[in-house]
Amino acid sequence: MMTKVFAYDTTLRDGAQAQGISFSVEDKLRIVRKLDELGIAYIEAGNPGSNPKDLEFFRRLGELTLRHAKIIAFGSTCKVGADPADDGQLASLLSANTPAVAIFGKTWDYQVTDILRTTPEENLRMIRATLAFLKAHGKEIVFDAEHFYDGYKAHADYALAALAAAVEGGADSLVLCDTNGGSFPDEIFDITRVVAQRFPGVAIGIHCHNDCELAVANSVRAVQAGATQVQGTINGIGERCGNANLCAIIPNLQLKLGFDVIPPDAMQTLTPVARFVSEVANVEHNDKAAYVGADAFAHKGGMHIDAVKKNPVSYEHTPPESVGNTRRVLMSEVAGRSTILGKIHEVDASLDKDSPQTRAIIDRLKALEHEGYQFESAESSFELLVRKMLGKFTPSFELKQFRAMVTEPALEGAFNSSAMIKIHVDGEDEISAAEGDGPVNALDRALRRALERFYPQLREMKLTDYKVRVLDSSLASAAKVRVLIESSDGESSWTTIGVSTDVIDASWRALVDAIEYKLAK
Amino acid sequence: MMTKVFAYDTTLRDGAQAQGISFSVEDKLRIVRKLDELGIAYIEAGNPGSNPKDLEFFRRLGELTLRHAKIIAFGSTCKVGADPADDGQLASLLSANTPAVAIFGKTWDYQVTDILRTTPEENLRMIRATLAFLKAHGKEIVFDAEHFYDGYKAHADYALAALAAAVEGGADSLVLCDTNGGSFPDEIFDITRVVAQRFPGVAIGIHCHNDCELAVANSVRAVQAGATQVQGTINGIGERCGNANLCAIIPNLQLKLGFDVIPPDAMQTLTPVARFVSEVANVEHNDKAAYVGADAFAHKGGMHIDAVKKNPVSYEHTPPESVGNTRRVLMSEVAGRSTILGKIHEVDASLDKDSPQTRAIIDRLKALEHEGYQFESAESSFELLVRKMLGKFTPSFELKQFRAMVTEPALEGAFNSSAMIKIHVDGEDEISAAEGDGPVNALDRALRRALERFYPQLREMKLTDYKVRVLDSSLASAAKVRVLIESSDGESSWTTIGVSTDVIDASWRALVDAIEYKLAK
Repeated sequence: MMTKVFAYDTTLRDGAQAQGISFSVEDKLRIVRKLDELGIAYIEAGNPGSNPKDLEFFRRLGELTLRHAKIIAFGSTCKVGADPADDGQLASLLSANTPAVAIFGKTWDYQVTDILRTTPEENLRMIRATLAFLKAHGKEIVFDAEHFYDGYKAHADYALAALAAAVEGGADSLVLCDTNGGSFPDEIFDITRVVAQRFPGVAIGIHCHNDCELAVANSVRAVQAGATQVQGTINGIGERCGNANLCAIIPNLQLKLGFDVIPPDAMQTLTPVARFVSEVANVEHNDKAAYVGADAFAHKGGMHIDAVKKNPVSYEHTPPESVGNTRRVLMSEVAGRSTILGKIHEVDASLDKDSPQTRAIIDRLKALEHEGYQFESAESSFELLVRKMLGKFTPSFELKQFRAMVTEPALEGAFNSSAMIKIHVDGEDEISAAEGDGPVNALDRALRRALERFYPQLREMKLTDYKVRVLDSSLASAAKVRVLIESSDGESSWTTIGVSTDVIDASWRALVDAIEYKLAK
Repeated sequence: MMTKVFAYDTTLRDGAQAQGISFSVEDKLRIVRKLDELGIAYIEAGNPGSNPKDLEFFRRLGELTLRHAKIIAFGSTCKVGADPADDGQLASLLSANTPAVAIFGKTWDYQVTDILRTTPEENLRMIRATLAFLKAHGKEIVFDAEHFYDGYKAHADYALAALAAAVEGGADSLVLCDTNGGSFPDEIFDITRVVAQRFPGVAIGIHCHNDCELAVANSVRAVQAGATQVQGTINGIGERCGNANLCAIIPNLQLKLGFDVIPPDAMQTLTPVARFVSEVANVEHNDKAAYVGADAFAHKGGMHIDAVKKNPVSYEHTPPESVGNTRRVLMSEVAGRSTILGKIHEVDASLDKDSPQTRAIIDRLKALEHEGYQFESAESSFELLVRKMLGKFTPSFELKQFRAMVTEPALEGAFNSSAMIKIHVDGEDEISAAEGDGPVNALDRALRRALERFYPQLREMKLTDYKVRVLDSSLASAAKVRVLIESSDGESSWTTIGVSTDVIDASWRALVDAIEYKLAK
């Protein structure tokens, strides 16, 4: 019988504290739906007492039917000297109408006397009275013991007394918070075990921050010490260095240590959910993220690739498909011929490694790599190259000419850059022009304007990432540059490449590939 | 007496395996210099047997005088059935002429029989013979026990026998590798302790990967179990999910656990070194990185800010200045006021930290950093900024207008780009034009042509390096870019910066600074 551990997601509450993160009501509803599908047990969705936008969100939550998740509204204990029944913040919390609430309170005596500026006894009363008030309203109560580990290290007796007050008030779970992220795995294990033994009738939770890059390890160690609830966020989103990353904790606990955290089938949606949240939060998805990053199962060195082909366990700690990710064998001169053949087979399965076409493609690949192309992160451009060489590609348009121009200083109220473009599609010429932030942006706009008449589906496509790298930078402004463009149409995303001594020309090549790839799909 | 732990950096070897990372010989020399200043004990700098570019680098290492670091050349055991004396790879390793070498060998029996396809006994011979051969050449030997933890979990006896063979061959240290990154802190602790007890006369090292987001915790636990050498990379650069991150491990061990890893003074250079390596590797520096990220000590929530003002320990696990980072409240705040004052003193030694001019410069610096400027690697632009703000700068020319134009396809035999420029110097207008490889190159040529009549000394100056970085790349082709230009006149070199939404405009700003700096010298 596997031990049950409840995943508690706070992406929408603590995660939203991160710099640059801001969710609309619609964003939050979409994320709740995805988290429920993933099998998250608790979703801490906002703080209705401090944020009027959250109240609207809680009202609209009724639109959703959730299969797994309980929604949690988050708030704090009542004020010093006050009666919880008179506390507007707690009234808002109740009006959110959730089955469960989370209340944070102080457990570090220094924080009570120096930050809250009250007596240790009054803080205990505030905890007890606030929880009892909410319990009388029938709520399941999660008590977040803020700064618990620092408090325990300073004065264990007081930290434990605060937990006891929460239990007396009716807490269903005690969440031990490493609020500043400064604790270490061995401390977390030892202290969590003491608490679990002291309060056998209550669930113990863990809430870590990543300030020492230890949040995942600390969360895992707490569970190994007896915690049965793990708080964290998708992709570790959160202020400072982030919250504990559920996308690593969940597979670590379930796939490696045998705990029962989410439904087994749901594990395969972990990578898509992680990417979805990055997209909604409008942050770059971390390619190097454990389990869910694009590079997590990417292999480059020739020796590693050979070994992984013989047996994936050679350089993979877990099968990528178990978390909905995929193995990637990077295209580069170190990659063997059989890797490239795999890519060729996606276009034409009849070719083998000795076919003249295969040899021609490999020769062309080598020549392009020598020029500075690198297809390991631009597989869409490689696929187009293969299609072209196998005669399976018809260009969607022909460039007659473009002109891009930059003028400094710019005219008052005008962009400094403009582009004119003339293309030929199906026997017709089309000419258009656009302004932009720089010549690449102007060119991008002018090209789309010209093409949309013929290919309206291009409207759903947008450029999501643009990278420039200078190759052999000792040639200074005449050096070659490599441009990578990532595009998305909402359903999938693809990356294309261009190399040239001219950044405009390199960008143009990547841009054309991006559009051709979309139209070939 | 604090226990000594040796920091072992492999950014230039294992880190360079990461997708998209490629260091030039010059880059590698610059990084070695910085790592030495940081007090890194061992720098694993490359694999001379597999990479001819590395051989040139090892030859040029003689140019550097290192205070702390020992350079390590990396290679593998000899081939199955072979004599190390006949092994070309080992001969290259010796030709690198380093005081120490690292050799990796297999310790997981499954890898020996299924990947290497030889007998367990032959693998032991290969380890023993290779190390004995290198020892006879007077090398300090680091033995990297590949897949050690997986091997130990499968067949402990064989994994330990492989270590014993390495000790018999003359290994000075045994580095236990969690090659696939799949091990957990408690396992790492237990197994490392067994090894440390079994081989008391040899130093034990730890080499972790971050596939379960546990590499920092695993490294720390290994040291707590008796390891005295920690391998990792700056910023955790490395293939898949990266190597163990020395920028978190070093302060965790030294500031939190009391180990002696690097000179105490050097700790304050940790953040600048981390940013420097990101810059040279041309990767975005991770804002959320523990200790060295721009957000690591950033406070957003009003309550947190109030508490931090009352006492930083409220929401900071360590003082930011201890690792050369800074607290940020709301907007960006600049690296140490005293650092900036030092720069200001180079222009005007009479100013102190409370002078209104100093405050004005710091305010301007903050505003520019917020826009995406970063003066750490562009000190010449910073010096010009200080001169301008102190009224100690007279521009050498005034731009009336430039126009840069790109046409595709280019006319037969012509460059695709051209630029026209009109400037004003000493009451005279000068207009000139040039073609080039791309608009920046054309503009650079046109500007020099116009200026050389007035400033013939510009003929001795040339651009030696040109880097482009996209900031906030989710805005795609309308994103901001940062351009760094390195120039040289044979005697000295200097770096200048420009930031704009337009790569041409950003390049122009950096170019003007480069020329003004030369003329102000």
